Formats: sequence, structure tokens, C-alpha cells
Amino acid sequence: MALIDAHTRGVFAIAPTPFTSDGGLDTASIHRLVGFYEAAGVDGLTVLGQLGEAPKLTGRESVQLAREVITRTSLPVVVGVSAPGFGAMKDLTAAVMDLGAAGVMIAPAHTLRTDEQILAYYQQAAEALGPDVPICVQDYPLTFSVVISPPVLARIAAEVPSVVMLKHEDWPGLEKISALRAAHLEGRMRRLSILCGNGGLFLDFEMQRGADGAMTGYCFPELLVDIVELTAAGDADQAMDLFDAHLPLIRYEQQPGTGLAVRKYVMHRRGIISSPVQRSPGRVLSSGERDEVDLLLNRLSKRDPRAELTR
Amino acid sequence: MALIDAHTRGVFAIAPTPFTSDGGLDTASIHRLVGFYEAAGVDGLTVLGQLGEAPKLTGRESVQLAREVITRTSLPVVVGVSAPGFGAMKDLTAAVMDLGAAGVMIAPAHTLRTDEQILAYYQQAAEALGPDVPICVQDYPLTFSVVISPPVLARIAAEVPSVVMLKHEDWPGLEKISALRAAHLEGRMRRLSILCGNGGLFLDFEMQRGADGAMTGYCFPELLVDIVELTAAGDADQAMDLFDAHLPLIRYEQQPGTGLAVRKYVMHRRGIISSPVQRSPGRVLSSGERDEVDLLLNRLSKRDPRAELTR
Amino acid sequence: MALIDAHTRGVFAIAPTPFTSDGGLDTASIHRLVGFYEAAGVDGLTVLGQLGEAPKLTGRESVQLAREVITRTSLPVVVGVSAPGFGAMKDLTAAVMDLGAAGVMIAPAHTLRTDEQILAYYQQAAEALGPDVPICVQDYPLTFSVVISPPVLARIAAEVPSVVMLKHEDWPGLEKISALRAAHLEGRMRRLSILCGNGGLFLDFEMQRGADGAMTGYCFPELLVDIVELTAAGDADQAMDLFDAHLPLIRYEQQPGTGLAVRKYVMHRRGIISSPVQRSPGRVLSSGERDEVDLLLNRLSKRDPRAELTR
Amino acid sequence: MALIDAHTRGVFAIAPTPFTSDGGLDTASIHRLVGFYEAAGVDGLTVLGQLGEAPKLTGRESVQLAREVITRTSLPVVVGVSAPGFGAMKDLTAAVMDLGAAGVMIAPAHTLRTDEQILAYYQQAAEALGPDVPICVQDYPLTFSVVISPPVLARIAAEVPSVVMLKHEDWPGLEKISALRAAHLEGRMRRLSILCGNGGLFLDFEMQRGADGAMTGYCFPELLVDIVELTAAGDADQAMDLFDAHLPLIRYEQQPGTGLAVRKYVMHRRGIISSPVQRSPGRVLSSGERDEVDLLLNRLSKRDPRAELTR
Repeated sequence: MALIDAHTRGVFAIAPTPFTSDGGLDTASIHRLVGFYEAAGVDGLTVLGQLGEAPKLTGRESVQLAREVITRTSLPVVVGVSAPGFGAMKDLTAAVMDLGAAGVMIAPAHTLRTDEQILAYYQQAAEALGPDVPICVQDYPLTFSVVISPPVLARIAAEVPSVVMLKHEDWPGLEKISALRAAHLEGRMRRLSILCGNGGLFLDFEMQRGADGAMTGYCFPELLVDIVELTAAGDADQAMDLFDAHLPLIRYEQQPGTGLAVRKYVMHRRGIISSPVQRSPGRVLSSGERDEVDLLLNRLSKRDPRAELTR
Repeated sequence: MALIDAHTRGVFAIAPTPFTSDGGLDTASIHRLVGFYEAAGVDGLTVLGQLGEAPKLTGRESVQLAREVITRTSLPVVVGVSAPGFGAMKDLTAAVMDLGAAGVMIAPAHTLRTDEQILAYYQQAAEALGPDVPICVQDYPLTFSVVISPPVLARIAAEVPSVVMLKHEDWPGLEKISALRAAHLEGRMRRLSILCGNGGLFLDFEMQRGADGAMTGYCFPELLVDIVELTAAGDADQAMDLFDAHLPLIRYEQQPGTGLAVRKYVMHRRGIISSPVQRSPGRVLSSGERDEVDLLLNRLSKRDPRAELTR
Repeated sequence: MALIDAHTRGVFAIAPTPFTSDGGLDTASIHRLVGFYEAAGVDGLTVLGQLGEAPKLTGRESVQLAREVITRTSLPVVVGVSAPGFGAMKDLTAAVMDLGAAGVMIAPAHTLRTDEQILAYYQQAAEALGPDVPICVQDYPLTFSVVISPPVLARIAAEVPSVVMLKHEDWPGLEKISALRAAHLEGRMRRLSILCGNGGLFLDFEMQRGADGAMTGYCFPELLVDIVELTAAGDADQAMDLFDAHLPLIRYEQQPGTGLAVRKYVMHRRGIISSPVQRSPGRVLSSGERDEVDLLLNRLSKRDPRAELTR
Repeated sequence: MALIDAHTRGVFAIAPTPFTSDGGLDTASIHRLVGFYEAAGVDGLTVLGQLGEAPKLTGRESVQLAREVITRTSLPVVVGVSAPGFGAMKDLTAAVMDLGAAGVMIAPAHTLRTDEQILAYYQQAAEALGPDVPICVQDYPLTFSVVISPPVLARIAAEVPSVVMLKHEDWPGLEKISALRAAHLEGRMRRLSILCGNGGLFLDFEMQRGADGAMTGYCFPELLVDIVELTAAGDADQAMDLFDAHLPLIRYEQQPGTGLAVRKYVMHRRGIISSPVQRSPGRVLSSGERDEVDLLLNRLSKRDPRAELTR
């Protein structure tokens, strides 16, 4: 199967992990989810991310989920393998690359502080995983408290050849995209694919700044595809009109902790997954929150009919 | 002058601190700013907050700024007095209460960890400031890394009588507002005024959840006033239409670090402050950022004519 | 095999994980290590702790290490099962309890902030592991940034019956031991076994304050056994004389990051493990550090002949 | 008065701030304290440090304290001027340099994350204070969560000429001293004076690694002077004998939060300050802690008669 590389573009949807109401992996929903993403036109999938409830799965379940997804689609699949140590990271990576994963995503350990420690971490990870596994660096300071500056990303690109992609979710992050692109154009940095996260909250401008696409899990991946394609086609204004219509819901879904419950609730209401349940410890929306999401969907449906729900 | 209390409602605008291009306090702009806020219909002002660049002022300048504002308006003025110790906090509080401030705002020390430590901190602060100074608790976990749960707020309300207001900017925070209101209604908690921050990013729903208003610094305070008044008048739908029109800009202004530069840039373009400059260390918008803000203003002006700029 | 309970006393040695020079688990050294601990008179063992390099092992290796130790000794063995989620925690716990482990040790997730979050975490962990698995709470704020106050420990004791032991390494922590003991004596708290960590740096006074023993990995576990037994026998003065002789080395070994390299170096020099190597990412002592440790051992040997090294 | 520079050597005692029992500055004790330090043979003093309760003083009191000390002694006096912003920092610096301070000490803001941010912070601070104020960088990751690596210190030395001294209290820190000294000797770094903190816990080896002295507040500054002088005289072995005798107390005083209460208690018992009281929020020793300190002093006095107390 194709591997991700420094020129990968488009939308990689971060997939939630569907559970049955008794807490097991919901295979039927996983299959339906894969079909849904293909129909939505995404360019790839990412599983076992933070919002895929990866830490709540056992090792066996993690591999099972990756297998269900990878064997079900011809889309490239990136697998989150972040772990507190390189032992478990290596194990999971070997298993999913054997299954045909397109690459792995690694967040920095939350204890890293200096630039040198961050660089060394990715050097050691790459050494542990071997030279043939393409790595996506997850740059998410809000959650991990680790700030990776553009010069450090340039050093990682220079010294860790298997790093090919950046999941960009620094906040603020627009100037960072421009800085990385300028460094590449001026020959100071190897090119990395830049796919943007943060729930899509800045995707309008991120694309205009030169990002290659999105890697995030907004409950309407169709919108992410539209924004990426419209911007690429030079129709930024239409992209922004559509983006603005979704922004109230994007903003609501971007609440830490609450966001995944919103995402699963909407995907459940859209008929994609059988149950919105999270595995413990997880949140369910309160009735007040459900009403708010319903209101946002209703308002959105007047501008984007895909948001009309029948159930 | 009137003091804030547990029933204070409306919009308290967080005022930026205007500087002249050589870095001094810009008194003329301060006066113009006060007039602008009065015309916008706000119910009070807050100075020397985080986004008021308070830490960059000397003790003398802090008092001078408070004096310029307080003596210039009949609106109640809350003054941020957060400090690494109670010595400086006490000094500044005494000075501004003498000048006629309506109360003070105190953020928790970033080192606080347990519930008991948080409660003790506000007890000690209140004891240091004396019983006659109304206190607004600033609950801003994103910046301060201190999480104050509803039960702890109930204990603070019970044990620290001079605490009368909560500047609510937990994230997510909607359920917290509901929890605090329910605790009050069920007799488990003394009432606190709840004014919401976070740049207004959730003000639509915060008002619907029972907040008393906003205390934040969005560059169109008129919008904050509209949302609060329309929601209070039962016209939530119209409030949301207006809110959604501003959301792309609200979202852009809510970027940490960048936000104040956006705010000052827009207020400068609106003719309110003479210079968008921040005192060092400060950010100025890049040309890319200025273009993005201009684009957002231009798009907004089609739905809210107040966003039309002539200069 | 016997389980730990709220009355467990004595010294539980935190075992390092020995590796061969090519990075594999060194089974021969593991066996020798177990024999050494038994000869030193410890009352139990703890494996897969932070300083057991647990995160660097694969899932399979973790179980293998636990099996090698548990099947080799009749001493109770506590197994560290901390993980970023309950999935992996449950897996490893089931495996090691089947093998005959005496209980498991769980550190709080580093993201916990409020008292309620900490309590909920241990409730959820206990629910995930089932009611028959005795739990040791690891209270180590320096590393985990989570502060568990005595009232919260009392609530955990009240609401999570399977929690029976505290690995106490708060710093400072002497008053905490007294507070917990007083709470128990005054009927405000269920008794927990308290075994102290922090490399033994305060073991002299911790025993006098009422701790039940030590759970730490100092390279001379014989000293820990002596301190616990001498204090229990009422001979605090002799205990302190012996303790003071070891303190320069205890202090040196207590340096974060460096400490494990010191411990493995000394255990290697004592002929217990074949190689001082750590799995990547790991530290080896510089020649300057080795000279310093040798000097400390040499000085110590004049007061405690067990520190005389022949190799 | 003489300024600190890159060749400053010896012991700079961190002075506690004595208060009267009603919470005011205790001028008589301040004078006695200065005399005591001179008699102890220290080479300089540091006031308004973290353990000088600086944040609890008002701006006026801070200047008053500095004046009382500076005008009372011919020793060089370093003044802690750390503040959340450059406004207050500049104010206090101007005042104390006018009074004759030898330089100022600045800790990094706790929000700094990347190497670039740390460098920029000291550049901005130096620019705010002006080129004639010698700066001591306080490198204390345990409290400030900011890790300054040797390469970053080399960059600070290269780009901020007014930085002349490092208050070294990284932990572990021995290899850091060696790295900084090697960088200097190999021409890769401008020389900085290195004075060590951490309560003296590693002073024996820090001097052997090439430190220039100590800047810390252990309650027997005579011991710090002895260690520095004996090591400089080539008598490391005698230095270590003396050091080891004090280590049980040094270790006890090095407990965060508790340490200052120990220090003030011993200095009070030694007749140097009239009251051990701290300004709120402060700790007083429990009776259990007082007994432990008394026991440590009693045991110490058998090896160092200066620890014999009559009151």
C-alpha cells in the first residue's frame, strides 16, 4: 500500500473509534465509517489518534482496529503510535506496518523541554522504528505542552529522514506555516507535508498560507474536502462562505474533552456509527449540550443541506 | 462610585492599554477609548488585565492608567491586581480603590494545585486586601494551569465573602455555568455574578446558560452588548445571527499571543487608539495577518455595517 | 501468593530491569537480582516502576519480566501498571495477577488537576481492574505534577476499597505521613499501608513519623532494611548513624535522570547485574560521574564495610 | 560599589527577609544579619530572592530592604528583580542600582518554552534594564519549569553582554557545570561566573567540577565558606568530611516550602534574627519538625561545634 511522503496532500480524516453499547469494538460501525469517509472524498484516514480513544484500547484491540480499517479500504491509513516509551511504540508500529499502514504519527513526550530534547526524541523514535517507516510529527502544544519551533522542525527534517509529515496544530499557527514554507523555498529546510488539525478552526487561512491539507476529525469531513479543493482551485471566497457557515459548529466541536462527544453524537445522528458511546473514562453530552448541537445543525442546514438530519 | 456585587450584569469591556509610538502611556487615546466604550453602551470597564499589558507597566504607570480611566467615566471600573505576591497586590488595590475603582480582579497563582490551595489563596488574598474590596475571581485554566471546579467555587463563595464575581473563561465552560447556576438555585451556593471571557467565542450559548454578561475585549464591544441585550430580551435567534457574522473575526482574535495585536490593529483602524503598538515584548501583525484581518472585516461589513472601515 | 494489604510492612525493593549489552532482557541477571534481594532481607519486590524502565519494554517483555521475577521468589511482587489509558493497564494487570503478583501500582495521569479528577481516576482504574486487585497509589508530584492532598487520599481510601497502599514520595512529605496517621487514628480515614520512596532521602524521619516501610530502589537495599528494622526496634539513634553514612550516596543517586545510571552502575560493580546498560533512551555515567560514585563508595566503606567493592 | 562580573568568586549568601512578629520589616534583625554574614566570611549577599519572600513585599519595602543592606555593608549585594513583566523589573532595578547594588538576578518567566523564547527573554530584559546593569541568570528548572541547556547559555553569553553570572541550580547539574567550563576552555563560550544554589546539596562536587562558588541560603553560611575555601586550597577530602557532617541538615532544609521555615528557625535559634515568622502566606514549623531540626542540630554539633545552640 502507498506510504505517506513529503508531498502528500488532501484530507486525512481522523476516525473516531466506534464502540458497541457494551463497550466492545463495533466492527459493523467501523466498516460503515470507512465507507462513509470514502464517499466523502477524503484522501486518507488516521486511526488511533488522541480523539480515537487510543489509550483506552488494549494492544490487541489497537491492532484489530487498524486491521479492520486497513483491509477495508485502499486509502492510505496513518496510525497513531504515541506511547510513553519506545517499546510499545515499536511493537504497534511493526504490527500495523505489516498490515499495510501508510505511516505512523508520533506526538512528543510531554516531559520534553529543550530544543535538543525534542530533536533527540524524534531521532530515537526513528531509530527504534527503523528507516522504512514514514513518520508524521504531531505538533500539538495545547495538549502536550511541548512547543516545537520552526528551526527545530527544520533540524528534525534535516536529521531524521523518515519524518515526512507534520500534523500541524500549534495555536496560533498561521505564521508557523508561512515560516516553514519560506524555509523550504529558500533552501533552508527539507519539504514536509503539512496537514492541519485543531478541528479545522483555521482551515480557511491555513490553506491560503500553503498547507497541503487537513488531518482532523470534524464531523462533516465533506466540508474539509470542500475547503481544501476550493482553495486549491483558486476559489478562496467560495471556500470561506462555506467555511463560515460551518464555523459555529466547528467552534463548538473544538472544546477540549467535550469535542469527541459532539463528534460521535453527530456521526451517530448521521447514521454512520451505531452508538455515540465512549469507553470509560468518557463524556456523554448533557441534554443541554445535545439541544445546542441540534440547534447548530438546524441553523447550518439552511446554508448546507448536508446538515439536515432525519433521525 | 458604585462597587461590583453578586448581581452585576452586562458587558464589562477589557480595555487594552494604548501606548504612544515611543512606548509611553497614550493619554489622549485612553480618553478616546473611554468615550468609545461609553458610546458602545458597555456597563463597565476592566483595566490592567492580562490583555491590558499590565505586567509591562511600572507600579506608577499602573496607578496612572487606572486614574485616567476612573476619573474620566462614571462607569464602574474593575482593576486587575494579580501579582506574584500579596505585597504588590495590596499596594495596587489600596491605590485604585482610593481612586474609586469598583473592585479588583485576581487570577490564581500558577503554582496552585490542590483544591485546598486554591481556596486558601483566595482567603489569604481577601484577608490581605481587607473586607471592603469586592473581588472578581479570574478562572482561566488555559493560561494559568489552575482548574477551579464548581465545588471549589462554591466553597470560595461560602468562605470568602468579598468574592462577588467570576470572570468565567474555563474551556469548555458551558456546563460549568449551568452547574454554578443550579448550585445557587438549589441553595448550595451563594450567588456570584458570572461574566464570560474567552474573547466571546461562546457568548451565544453562555448567555443562554445563565451568564450575567461578558467581560472580554473583543474589538467590537458593540457586538457583545447586542448579544447580551438580545438574549436578555428573549431574542436568542437574532442574537445568534449577529454572533455568527462576527464569529470568523472573534475566532481569529482569540489566538493566544496574536489576539492582542489583532485587537489593537482593529481599534487603531477604527480610529479609537492612535497606534497599535505594544510595549516590548509585544507582537505586531505581519503583513499576511493584516491582510487576513482586513479580509475578515470586509466580509463582516456585508452583514454588520459597523465593520466598514474608512481608513 | 500473598496479596499486599493495608497492613503490609517492611521494605519493597524497586528492581531495575537488567539488559544484556545488546539490549535484550538479561534473564540471568534477573535471577541473580532476585537472589540478591532475598539475601538482603527485603520483604517484597516492585517491578516495572518508573525506574524499572517499564515504558521501554514491549507488552510481551513486561509480562516476561514479571513472570521471571514472580516465579523465582516467594516474596510478594508489586507490578507497576501505569499507562496512558485503562486498556493497556487492564491487559497487563490481568496477566500479572494471573502469574501471582501481589498487587499493582498506579501513578495518576499527568493531566489530572482537581481533587475530583484525581478521585475519579482511581475509581475508574479500580473499576477497570476489578475488585480483587489490590492497588498501591503512587504519590509522586515531582514527576507527575499531580498533588494528592491528605483529604483526597482519605476520600480515595473511603470510596475505592481496593486501594490498600500508598507509595509515598511527596516532597516535602513528613507532615503528610503524620496527617494520614492522625486521620486514621482519629477515625477519619481507613488505614493504608505507607511505604516511602524518594530514593530513601528522608527514610530516617519517615519511619519515625509512622511509615510502614520503604518502597524504593537505593543501590544498597540492605541499608533500607536496617533503617526500617532498627527504627521498629526502637533504636532510632543507631539507625540515624547508619543512615547518615549512606546519605552522601543516597543524595547522589536521587538526581533525576542520573539516578538510575548510578544505581545500575553500583549494582553492576557489586556483581549483581552483568551490565549497567539502559535501553535507549538512557544515560550512562560519564567518567567524571563514575569517579564521583567511586569516591562516595570508598568513603562509605570506611563506615559500612558492605560498600567495599573488589571489582 | 563593586559590580559582579564574569570572574566573581566565593559565597554569596541568600539572605532571608526578617519580619517583626506583627509582620513589618525588622530593621534591627536586618542589621544583625548583615553583621553575621560579614563575620561568617561570605563574599557577597543576595537579597529579594525567592527565599527572601520578595513577592510578599510592596515595591516600597523592596527598595527599603535593599537600602538597609547595601548601606550597611561594603560587600557586593545582588538584588533579585524577577517580575512578571519588564515594567516592575526596570523600576526596581533602577532604584537598587542607584543605591549601589552590585547587579541583579533574573529568573526566566515560567511560560517560556523554546530555546528561542528563553534567549529572547534575556535579550529583552537586558535591553529594558540598560547595558550597565550586570545580570545574574537564575537557572532553576525545578521551580520555574524552564530548562536552559548549555548551548542556550552559550548563546545568551554571546548575545547579551550584560549577563555575567549564572546562579546554577539545575538538578541534576554536575555535568552542566563541566559542559559550561569545557565550552569556555574550548573557546565556544564567553566565561560566566557560576555560583551554585540548590541549598548546597551538591556543593562538594560542584566545586570540584569547576564552579566559582555558592549562592544559596543554608542556615550555616560558614559551612559554605569552608567548602569553597577548602576545595580552592586543594583540600577536597577535608571539605567532604565537613560537608558530610552537615548533609543531614542541608537535606532537611532543602525541602520545598518547608526549607525557609527551617532556615529562619535555625537563624532565630542562633540569635541572628529576632523572629522566625514569615509573612503570609508562610509556613511555621510544626512541633514535630522543630524536634527533628533540634535533633539534627544536636547530632551535627558533635562534629561541628558551631552548631551548638545555647538558646
